[in-house]
Amino acid sequence: MEFIVNDFWQGEFTVNEPGIYEYTIEAMVDHLTTWWKDIQKKATGSDNLTVDLKNGLSLLAEVVLKIEEADKKVAIQKLITLIQRGENQEEIIKLLKKELNKEFLKKYPLPNHITHYDKNLRVIVDRKRAGFSAWYELFPRSCSSKPGAHGTFRDCLNWIPEIANMGFNVLYFPPIHPIGETHRKGKNNTILANSDDPGSPWAIGNKTGGHIAIHPRLGRLEDFQEVIKKAQEYGMEIALDLAFQCSPDHPYIKEHPEWFRWRVDGTIQYAENPPKKYEDIVPFNFETENWRGLWEELKNIVMFWIKQGIKIFRVDNPHTKPFLFWEWLINLVKKDYPEVIFLSEAFTRPKVMYRLAKLGFTQSYTYFTWRNTKQELTDYLIELTQTQVREYFRPNFWPNTPDILSEYLQTDGNPAFIIKFILAATLSSNYGIYGPPYERFINKPLPGKEEYYNSEKYEIKNWLSEEVKENIRDLFATINRIREENSEFHQTNNIQFLPVENNQLLYFAKFNEERNNAILVVINLDPYYTQSGWVKVPLYELGIPPEQSFLAHDLLGGGQYVWQGEYNYVELNPYVLPAHIIKIKKYLKRENQFDYFN
Amino acid sequence: MEFIVNDFWQGEFTVNEPGIYEYTIEAMVDHLTTWWKDIQKKATGSDNLTVDLKNGLSLLAEVVLKIEEADKKVAIQKLITLIQRGENQEEIIKLLKKELNKEFLKKYPLPNHITHYDKNLRVIVDRKRAGFSAWYELFPRSCSSKPGAHGTFRDCLNWIPEIANMGFNVLYFPPIHPIGETHRKGKNNTILANSDDPGSPWAIGNKTGGHIAIHPRLGRLEDFQEVIKKAQEYGMEIALDLAFQCSPDHPYIKEHPEWFRWRVDGTIQYAENPPKKYEDIVPFNFETENWRGLWEELKNIVMFWIKQGIKIFRVDNPHTKPFLFWEWLINLVKKDYPEVIFLSEAFTRPKVMYRLAKLGFTQSYTYFTWRNTKQELTDYLIELTQTQVREYFRPNFWPNTPDILSEYLQTDGNPAFIIKFILAATLSSNYGIYGPPYERFINKPLPGKEEYYNSEKYEIKNWLSEEVKENIRDLFATINRIREENSEFHQTNNIQFLPVENNQLLYFAKFNEERNNAILVVINLDPYYTQSGWVKVPLYELGIPPEQSFLAHDLLGGGQYVWQGEYNYVELNPYVLPAHIIKIKKYLKRENQFDYFN
Repeated sequence: MEFIVNDFWQGEFTVNEPGIYEYTIEAMVDHLTTWWKDIQKKATGSDNLTVDLKNGLSLLAEVVLKIEEADKKVAIQKLITLIQRGENQEEIIKLLKKELNKEFLKKYPLPNHITHYDKNLRVIVDRKRAGFSAWYELFPRSCSSKPGAHGTFRDCLNWIPEIANMGFNVLYFPPIHPIGETHRKGKNNTILANSDDPGSPWAIGNKTGGHIAIHPRLGRLEDFQEVIKKAQEYGMEIALDLAFQCSPDHPYIKEHPEWFRWRVDGTIQYAENPPKKYEDIVPFNFETENWRGLWEELKNIVMFWIKQGIKIFRVDNPHTKPFLFWEWLINLVKKDYPEVIFLSEAFTRPKVMYRLAKLGFTQSYTYFTWRNTKQELTDYLIELTQTQVREYFRPNFWPNTPDILSEYLQTDGNPAFIIKFILAATLSSNYGIYGPPYERFINKPLPGKEEYYNSEKYEIKNWLSEEVKENIRDLFATINRIREENSEFHQTNNIQFLPVENNQLLYFAKFNEERNNAILVVINLDPYYTQSGWVKVPLYELGIPPEQSFLAHDLLGGGQYVWQGEYNYVELNPYVLPAHIIKIKKYLKRENQFDYFN
Repeated sequence: MEFIVNDFWQGEFTVNEPGIYEYTIEAMVDHLTTWWKDIQKKATGSDNLTVDLKNGLSLLAEVVLKIEEADKKVAIQKLITLIQRGENQEEIIKLLKKELNKEFLKKYPLPNHITHYDKNLRVIVDRKRAGFSAWYELFPRSCSSKPGAHGTFRDCLNWIPEIANMGFNVLYFPPIHPIGETHRKGKNNTILANSDDPGSPWAIGNKTGGHIAIHPRLGRLEDFQEVIKKAQEYGMEIALDLAFQCSPDHPYIKEHPEWFRWRVDGTIQYAENPPKKYEDIVPFNFETENWRGLWEELKNIVMFWIKQGIKIFRVDNPHTKPFLFWEWLINLVKKDYPEVIFLSEAFTRPKVMYRLAKLGFTQSYTYFTWRNTKQELTDYLIELTQTQVREYFRPNFWPNTPDILSEYLQTDGNPAFIIKFILAATLSSNYGIYGPPYERFINKPLPGKEEYYNSEKYEIKNWLSEEVKENIRDLFATINRIREENSEFHQTNNIQFLPVENNQLLYFAKFNEERNNAILVVINLDPYYTQSGWVKVPLYELGIPPEQSFLAHDLLGGGQYVWQGEYNYVELNPYVLPAHIIKIKKYLKRENQFDYFN
């Protein structure tokens, strides 16, 4: 380890393969180095160091036993003899300087009073997709082109090229399993379903099967395999939902009644968050005596889908299950399949979200959905990227989900959808959208709520009959291409907020690895009015002299601006394009580079 | 524990007696409280809760077994019967509300899935002097009134009333033990001493004794006892020096040669910090095989002086001895004598100083000596008082010591002495001065060093023949009286820096316990020029309306200023008095309080 400053020491090692690594620290007294340092300090004076040198003989005799290289061994032995004989001091110190270099002292320490740090520290190394992903959420049952028909995996196949063309690389399906009939919810979460209501996909299980079965109307396992394969061909991965809960018709309830809570009247305890009731869903009782059996079974579910080729899971409400369970499960899975990614859908208190990340979740949903103003976005991003949180929590930014239609999207018109999308895709290297309603700017809520009116959770949609708005798919494609092509967007923690005096403009740099160049992003947060301001370009960090002109190339709008000096003007109309994504070209060609110059 | 915010919980307990206390935390699932909370939430609707109520019967049956109060037991048993019978729901809930109150649920928890925090946390409770002290350092050997004579404890007796009158409450003596003769240092740390040079008091031990002996020329143990007694009568405590090192003549060297390092030529290893040499001092070798014997003996030294009535120790260079040794020693001493105070003289790296504080040192020297500008002082005080450091590190501010005559005091004229004194005594509730040279504004250094020329460490001074400058003793007395009378100065962490636009003015508030009043301190840091500025009074925190006039009473200079509004003018001449210490009287008397008003 190397000394940095103020008792901070730094060491490094490289971990190339995905997996979980452990390391710890040990410290010791290094008498040989101390002796040699002191000799060097004393040697600047005129003192006779014969005794001081002899004081080190026992240390040299000890180290000589360890040396592997024959030459080196001889050299040190010779030094020992010279010191014993009291030969010329300057000559000895010159030789010591040659032999006792840093590498040697590091290679052959004489450990003394070794102290071990009492913890084993973990590094979880994930594959690249864990740090850089663009998710698209889709209900397979709404993929049919026939109005009212239940979509199938075969229907999904047609969607794959289009979603891939927009640049998404994770296609996420809500649960694909059989849905319960008892207490099935109707349209808009009503208590009584009609006979043709399909029910919520999260009410998992009926007589045809549970968490490892496929909803019969979606198709068979072979059909699902084809979806996985076609997605792969188009550079996408399929992500599945892990919702560890049951409908009242799930086979587990008869097979393992001890995994559930029963009321005194003999009925099963459904999910509640008083006064809210989820009569169609039954939670597992993790306090069951037979928790080992339950844990084992849940692990088997994950292993089953991994064996089908699924390597990404979006985990439903992990915060309502024990931390210890997740720690056990994720560690176990990662031991054999370090490439597996777990996205935590825990919309809960920050410490709980962070704890889930620490114990092993790869990515997490965030509060981004509710962060709208410049101050809110800046504060939140600083918490995520400039504090200790960055060491363990990988955010995944979602503007919407089937559960959440935020007030910002409800009230702020179509540009709001574009602004929120650009924010998600540029602020975070991992982001996702619940796609079909987003492309259609659907913003009608249940009155007074942040939920979709006629939510797809309770009915089948026929998206193909509803028009996609304007050219939003082109925008998705452009931004995803910019993200793909510029490594500045492949991580989240390289963000730095920069000054612009207009509070409706969010302005930040995404620095490259070497921190000598950056992409500058300016976003107009106001979905109604054109906003303008003078953005401060970080010339010093970029290494651009203040008097030198440079090129600001807007990768999004295509504009190329010749800028000079720290402050430069931007103006953004939300009805045209609410953002610049600016690549800096530090040097403009000058007359002496012109072919005919001379 | 009570919930605060964001998963922070708070609990409190009171520790009245000095000592070391341990606490830890356990958490559990509280099913009874959860059940009752849910019942209350559900009861707001029109649902039939018969089954929900019955679900709680087993919990109520469990709790009823624990209840001690007969009435309460009967009441809960009655409730159980009512629930079993399915009696009127509203009636039952009304009764539950009465019985299952917070106190009851706290008193009779039904522990389930108990988790223990894996640490035992410590609170060290010290007596008040640990948090509020004014130290005066004095070499007893320089107390004689006869020029050139070796001072005695009897001479010291005459000094006590004067030092007490200045308001100091700890009188600290450098080591009072026999001094070695071998390699004794001469004036200004020269290698060869003259026969009449007294040697450094830190070169402890000769044939007449070691760490539990008294230097024969200072007097006998009985004389020292008298000093302790007289100091006590004047409200002062004597602090002794614990310097765990020896002169080459210390009896230990013959009795326990294994406690020291020996060179190959058979000579003993003296203290070195290459290229510096301390030939008159021999360090203990804490890596000795017989470390148990060494630790035991050092403990005996401390116990010996404690039994003589010494309860305050200034510990010399604790950072050159093992952390584990101090942890063991301080814990052991405090077990029987929790009133003992250890001041750590570790002028070393911050993490080491903080570690010593964490392991048990009561107070510590600081970098205050080298903090001069407003920015430096503010940054340092914020680190000490507004970060985690405040939880374990109790600073003791010293403008000078026998080892340190700072550049600020060397070059900045007499007002520098006054400014640095006021800073020490107002910024920190614990402070001290190396008194006799401070009172005489002695500022001649060894050229290019921060050490005194003709340092008292190597010679006997005859202070009584040198005049005390101006009225500095009155200033000491005034400031110590202000500190004594105003509890705002009895702690250090209640400081808050406040705005004044002049960078030569340091301006801060010392808030009272209730945080509804404060003493405002303004100090001119410039020892040459009068400085002025508009200080911002924290009206909101003090609860003074902006339009209301109030009285600013300068406890130091005596001035009484009628102020109004946030910004008020101050002007400080370093040659008159470089500081205001302002007590705020919030309400001025008005006409309607005038006796004849009617």
